[in-house]
Amino acid sequence: MANKHPYLTTHEGKLYLTDQEKGLRTSLEIKEVLYEERSPYQHIMIVDTVLFGRALILDGIVQTTEKEGFIYNEMISHMPLAFHPKAEDVLIVGGGDLGVAREVLKYPFVRRVDMVEIDARVVEASRTYLPEVAAPPDDRLHIYFEDGALFVGRKEAAYDVIIVDAADPVGPATVLFEHPFYAALERALRADGVMAAQSDSPIHHIDVCKRTHSSLKSLFPIVYPYFSTVPAYPSGWWMFTLASKRYDMLRPLDPGISTRFVNDAILRGSLAVPNMFAQALFSV
Amino acid sequence: MANKHPYLTTHEGKLYLTDQEKGLRTSLEIKEVLYEERSPYQHIMIVDTVLFGRALILDGIVQTTEKEGFIYNEMISHMPLAFHPKAEDVLIVGGGDLGVAREVLKYPFVRRVDMVEIDARVVEASRTYLPEVAAPPDDRLHIYFEDGALFVGRKEAAYDVIIVDAADPVGPATVLFEHPFYAALERALRADGVMAAQSDSPIHHIDVCKRTHSSLKSLFPIVYPYFSTVPAYPSGWWMFTLASKRYDMLRPLDPGISTRFVNDAILRGSLAVPNMFAQALFSV
Repeated sequence: MANKHPYLTTHEGKLYLTDQEKGLRTSLEIKEVLYEERSPYQHIMIVDTVLFGRALILDGIVQTTEKEGFIYNEMISHMPLAFHPKAEDVLIVGGGDLGVAREVLKYPFVRRVDMVEIDARVVEASRTYLPEVAAPPDDRLHIYFEDGALFVGRKEAAYDVIIVDAADPVGPATVLFEHPFYAALERALRADGVMAAQSDSPIHHIDVCKRTHSSLKSLFPIVYPYFSTVPAYPSGWWMFTLASKRYDMLRPLDPGISTRFVNDAILRGSLAVPNMFAQALFSV
Repeated sequence: MANKHPYLTTHEGKLYLTDQEKGLRTSLEIKEVLYEERSPYQHIMIVDTVLFGRALILDGIVQTTEKEGFIYNEMISHMPLAFHPKAEDVLIVGGGDLGVAREVLKYPFVRRVDMVEIDARVVEASRTYLPEVAAPPDDRLHIYFEDGALFVGRKEAAYDVIIVDAADPVGPATVLFEHPFYAALERALRADGVMAAQSDSPIHHIDVCKRTHSSLKSLFPIVYPYFSTVPAYPSGWWMFTLASKRYDMLRPLDPGISTRFVNDAILRGSLAVPNMFAQALFSV
């Protein structure tokens, strides 16, 4: 039985969103499609899933969910913020669901957060349908609706921390995984700046992980790959990369920062690299 | 299009093995069924998967795979062996694919490994079709083909380390997740013994995780839940539980022990408990 939603399939009378990677099909059961539109940039859906609650879907790919999206958002945010002793100016590239902004704004010493997101409709939809994920209103948050690579290209020594919360390296986000963009990030950071980027699945795309790692190694003296489980993403395992100009050690997580996933031991433990990935990432 | 294999489905001309949990269908593409039989205990298949190479399937559920099964086997074995300073007598309950035996036998100070597995046909099939997983022949390994709970019930202060590599808590393995069995394990361990058990998926079965944790807490002074990604299992995230009578600290992993996943930092990092699970496991 067909349904009227692109990207969704019907199986035994139930709606599913399916991610097909090499040899693995992962299908999330959908209770209801709450919102759907084709923006100038992509196809946007907000659905209610059986397992993870509400989810933001872009071009058929899960971006974040109500019930576990905080794992990804906390891992990509608190790691760089624990490396920098006191980040005041933070840039988020992408991050349209406002989940990363929510984490960054928890720090009272952060005085300004710039966020550059290409698609205003994603922010709008997230604010309306994903209040559990999206940051509440905050005067420190400034959102620019434009191309992230162009925005970063105009900045020099402007930020203490930059977080790249990009969609997958297919379509418009492809440039956000390439060397010229990382070089621009390096220039946009201050002399003691720290950055973190999502680096795709080490199970399905170890090539992307490896390219990101070597690209950042050629630009920054201190680079750490780190890993976390993110249940709603294909294979459930995700890599991030941290790059730092000066700081090489995690501060303890600030007391009073409230989290559902990360704590000091999780942040430290996530810097441990399984042998199999060390071999793939560090071998020349 | 139907196919002749129970538990497998055909989709667009390709064979899949599907795991259906609440709201999530995970389907592994199968290249070929290499072996299939119905033993007195269960349905056994060895298949060749596109993503993870060869896999052992019992009653339609993935038990181990050639390309990532070592993650599970290393996590369940090296953690208890790093807690005990010098385990000489080790018991494996279940473990029919001989993957845990392979890890345990890497330690030269281990002088005897008893393994109690209900189904001789699983061991036979693994030896034939999964040489990458199954332990090579070793005089120290003694396999008993009988009911694990009955075997353990006859033992007293006989082992330094016990590893429970049970199938899911449905069907014959159900008793291996219940309090009387854990109490029997406690009696079968020496006064300084350490045990580890797989404790199911914290995403799909946090109730099983929590029950295991409280059951072992009532029997042992030292209990640690720990977590790892296991890509071929549903949700990709798995919990294990370590229980120890005396030792509270990991020795460094022995030099010369060759691993593909674990190292000291991974073992230590895996003892970090995400806030969300700490709340579920430790709250009364």
